[in-house]
Amino acid sequence: MALSLGELAVRFGCELRGDPESLVSSVGTLAGGPGVIGFVASAAYREALQQTKLTAVVLDSRLAQFCPVAALVCRNPHATFARIAALLHPLPAPVPGIHPSAIVDPAAQIDASASIGALAVVGAAAVVGPRCQVGPHCILEPGATLGADVQLIARVFVGGSVTIGPRCILHPGAVVGSDGFGNARDDSGWVKVPQLGGVRIGADVEIGANTTIDRGALDDTVIEDGAKLDNQIQIAHNVVIGAHTAIAACVGIAGSTRIGKRCMIGGGTGINGQITLGDDIVITGMGMITRSLDKPGLYSSVIPVEEARLWRRIVGRLKRIDTMAARITALEAAAGVSALPQDDNND
Amino acid sequence: MALSLGELAVRFGCELRGDPESLVSSVGTLAGGPGVIGFVASAAYREALQQTKLTAVVLDSRLAQFCPVAALVCRNPHATFARIAALLHPLPAPVPGIHPSAIVDPAAQIDASASIGALAVVGAAAVVGPRCQVGPHCILEPGATLGADVQLIARVFVGGSVTIGPRCILHPGAVVGSDGFGNARDDSGWVKVPQLGGVRIGADVEIGANTTIDRGALDDTVIEDGAKLDNQIQIAHNVVIGAHTAIAACVGIAGSTRIGKRCMIGGGTGINGQITLGDDIVITGMGMITRSLDKPGLYSSVIPVEEARLWRRIVGRLKRIDTMAARITALEAAAGVSALPQDDNND
Amino acid sequence: MALSLGELAVRFGCELRGDPESLVSSVGTLAGGPGVIGFVASAAYREALQQTKLTAVVLDSRLAQFCPVAALVCRNPHATFARIAALLHPLPAPVPGIHPSAIVDPAAQIDASASIGALAVVGAAAVVGPRCQVGPHCILEPGATLGADVQLIARVFVGGSVTIGPRCILHPGAVVGSDGFGNARDDSGWVKVPQLGGVRIGADVEIGANTTIDRGALDDTVIEDGAKLDNQIQIAHNVVIGAHTAIAACVGIAGSTRIGKRCMIGGGTGINGQITLGDDIVITGMGMITRSLDKPGLYSSVIPVEEARLWRRIVGRLKRIDTMAARITALEAAAGVSALPQDDNND
Repeated sequence: MALSLGELAVRFGCELRGDPESLVSSVGTLAGGPGVIGFVASAAYREALQQTKLTAVVLDSRLAQFCPVAALVCRNPHATFARIAALLHPLPAPVPGIHPSAIVDPAAQIDASASIGALAVVGAAAVVGPRCQVGPHCILEPGATLGADVQLIARVFVGGSVTIGPRCILHPGAVVGSDGFGNARDDSGWVKVPQLGGVRIGADVEIGANTTIDRGALDDTVIEDGAKLDNQIQIAHNVVIGAHTAIAACVGIAGSTRIGKRCMIGGGTGINGQITLGDDIVITGMGMITRSLDKPGLYSSVIPVEEARLWRRIVGRLKRIDTMAARITALEAAAGVSALPQDDNND
Repeated sequence: MALSLGELAVRFGCELRGDPESLVSSVGTLAGGPGVIGFVASAAYREALQQTKLTAVVLDSRLAQFCPVAALVCRNPHATFARIAALLHPLPAPVPGIHPSAIVDPAAQIDASASIGALAVVGAAAVVGPRCQVGPHCILEPGATLGADVQLIARVFVGGSVTIGPRCILHPGAVVGSDGFGNARDDSGWVKVPQLGGVRIGADVEIGANTTIDRGALDDTVIEDGAKLDNQIQIAHNVVIGAHTAIAACVGIAGSTRIGKRCMIGGGTGINGQITLGDDIVITGMGMITRSLDKPGLYSSVIPVEEARLWRRIVGRLKRIDTMAARITALEAAAGVSALPQDDNND
Repeated sequence: MALSLGELAVRFGCELRGDPESLVSSVGTLAGGPGVIGFVASAAYREALQQTKLTAVVLDSRLAQFCPVAALVCRNPHATFARIAALLHPLPAPVPGIHPSAIVDPAAQIDASASIGALAVVGAAAVVGPRCQVGPHCILEPGATLGADVQLIARVFVGGSVTIGPRCILHPGAVVGSDGFGNARDDSGWVKVPQLGGVRIGADVEIGANTTIDRGALDDTVIEDGAKLDNQIQIAHNVVIGAHTAIAACVGIAGSTRIGKRCMIGGGTGINGQITLGDDIVITGMGMITRSLDKPGLYSSVIPVEEARLWRRIVGRLKRIDTMAARITALEAAAGVSALPQDDNND
């Protein structure tokens, strides 16, 4: 498919600087060539922009002056580029119908426009909405419910107590609705606490490869509309993730914690259970969150690596920081200098 | 199924305060209503308890006075509640037999009371014990052995060198018996070290979704009776996990490390290889364990997030903590104050 | 299979101290017995060596003097042992052909010597090279390409844009070629950025259980020859991993980061996106890497656990380290002592 720049400008509300009849048929990086459209969203790529041989570039008005080829100027080049890419590179439409190798319970409700892939297993009373794509090797336990246009790419597990809203995308290896980690201590060890809640996933949620989301213990685990979850995230039972919150890979969130709306959680972050993060909280990668946070803003606890020899000295000092404080206090006493008012020498 | 409070009190050894003829048919939170039984195990929920409209609540004698409805009083409300929940919400019994779509080697030994689910693959000489439930898409490599009453919920991989004890539960995506990470450095890169050991899993072990447990290099990897492993845990080759140890999600344990009995390892913790943790050691979430620990107790190395701007200042200071110590030493010399005896100014 | 020590010495270039006619048939630890060959690569096992009842031990010349049985002396005992183990314990050769339960598109190109396992799914235009082993429940999307002698042990997902070089080994649950985490912020939330790049994996790469490697956004994600990846690693879109780099379990690498050749990344490490690590960089376990590193060497940011009570005091002090620095500055002013030249009291 080839589209003219004029058509793209009209469709996505861009100002076009260049020939409206020029055609593009694919998207690519600034290193691409004719027939390709790219984008720039940061001044860091100015030099690459100035040397590009693309047919056109999507960018904002600040960078447009550096563009040697046709420019589609808009306020949000990244989002506009994403929409152009989706238009030029449409996903193959799933073929409606049930693959003959799939094992589908007669009592499952499969919309006639849905596609059930090879070797999928769909249990009794599962519901698969219009135009859903259930990829190869997916499992829907009895009772699992998919809204319209849900894509389970391949090998996704959806437990019986799970409801997934329209237009969600789940990537290979994702497990939604497994038992939460509920154990009661007893004299003889641990007693399993039956996990009886569900998982409710809103509309337009994306869930990455090998991410796991446990069902609630009694109430439900909830992922609100538009939340985006990367790969290998662990969401424990009864967690609530607010709308449009984005979570990068390898984050673990312990039980019953509530995350607000529009948060961004950096990769590798760990979040304790039973706490609450408000809206618009941003955590840098590898953060550790042990208590509730309600003030919007950027939080961090990352400690970048040092050369190991130096780092060992630093950790040694850190472990004896109490002694350093005591030495300062002793010096202050000897010098008759009083500690600063905000000080902590008496704790 | 509805049960009377009198029957529950007798069966679980509780003191009943209320009408023994009252019936409950399900468990729920304190926000539930008639016919539901809940529990309270912490004074933090006292207010919710005082407003509950449940038919009955399981609790201990301290909280019983605040309960406005029938109370089942016992020493360990959480464990008692877990048992009541299991009684009121029994899992559907697996149907004995082999699903026609499963691929079962004729040389596999499948107990007649076991259930083999849709599209499962069971290799030669695999052993499946009485009343086992092998869910859809599970793989048992040739030689894998399951004791009685094992539940592989769905899509569990069990390698050929793996033995799993009675009543274990493995959740979707778990991989048990994959090759350990064994590589010998050579001039030209890495030489794979064949992984020849097995995995021995005791009785009553639970293994979470997408958790991975590698086979030993020469000897076995061992998970002892009653250990509980949450989701996305990584257990390297030749690790030993002691009986009744509980490990929260996203923990990684490197090769040949031994963890004692009744330990509790917080989520996201990393544990170096070749070390030993004794019995009854508790690690807070996101801990880093680099050396052996033998004294029972609570250990931590978590650093909670701060506002990023402040945190950057703190890290900057930390990285120069050696300089701070030198300044203190210089001040002590100038003032004729000698360092505290336990000090470290000469290291 | 039993082999003589003389044959092993010749084949692997070892000096034999002992009877060349002695036979070994398996490898084992130093605790093994007759007919077994073991190895020692560290003086830490000297005592165990002195008590061994093995038939023979592979070791270097420093340790040979402590060996009470036959010795195969060589420069790199671990690598030599790995090769002997592979010789004595050959993997069962996969049976060429397509399992009748596999779903293979007629347009896929499957070499006649390759093995396609039970319930595998191979899409149109997928290419499977000579002697490949595609285990049970693997999925090759249309267009996925495997070179010669690739082993997909079981339940591996290979996306349509993925090329895997010869002799690679992928373990159960690995996902290669899933969508990267690309989202453009918009007024209404997030717009998915189509992920259109591929994954190129070189020769002799090993990829652990449940590891995930995302396809590139526009260009490819690249894993170079001989790289070794353990379990549960997350590789984001457009990452490049250099040749012969080894990465331990639970590492997460964010988008577009480039890792050099022969690096070793300890388990649980997190690496930010958009940065570059040079060749021969070694990171201790649980490191946090936020900026580019080019100097070869050992880097660390691990903080080992302390008893929790003490640790809380240390963290409390750390959080107020700025105050400590200010107190020192005040003392210096009072004492007329000037700060050390490299000091930081004015920042």
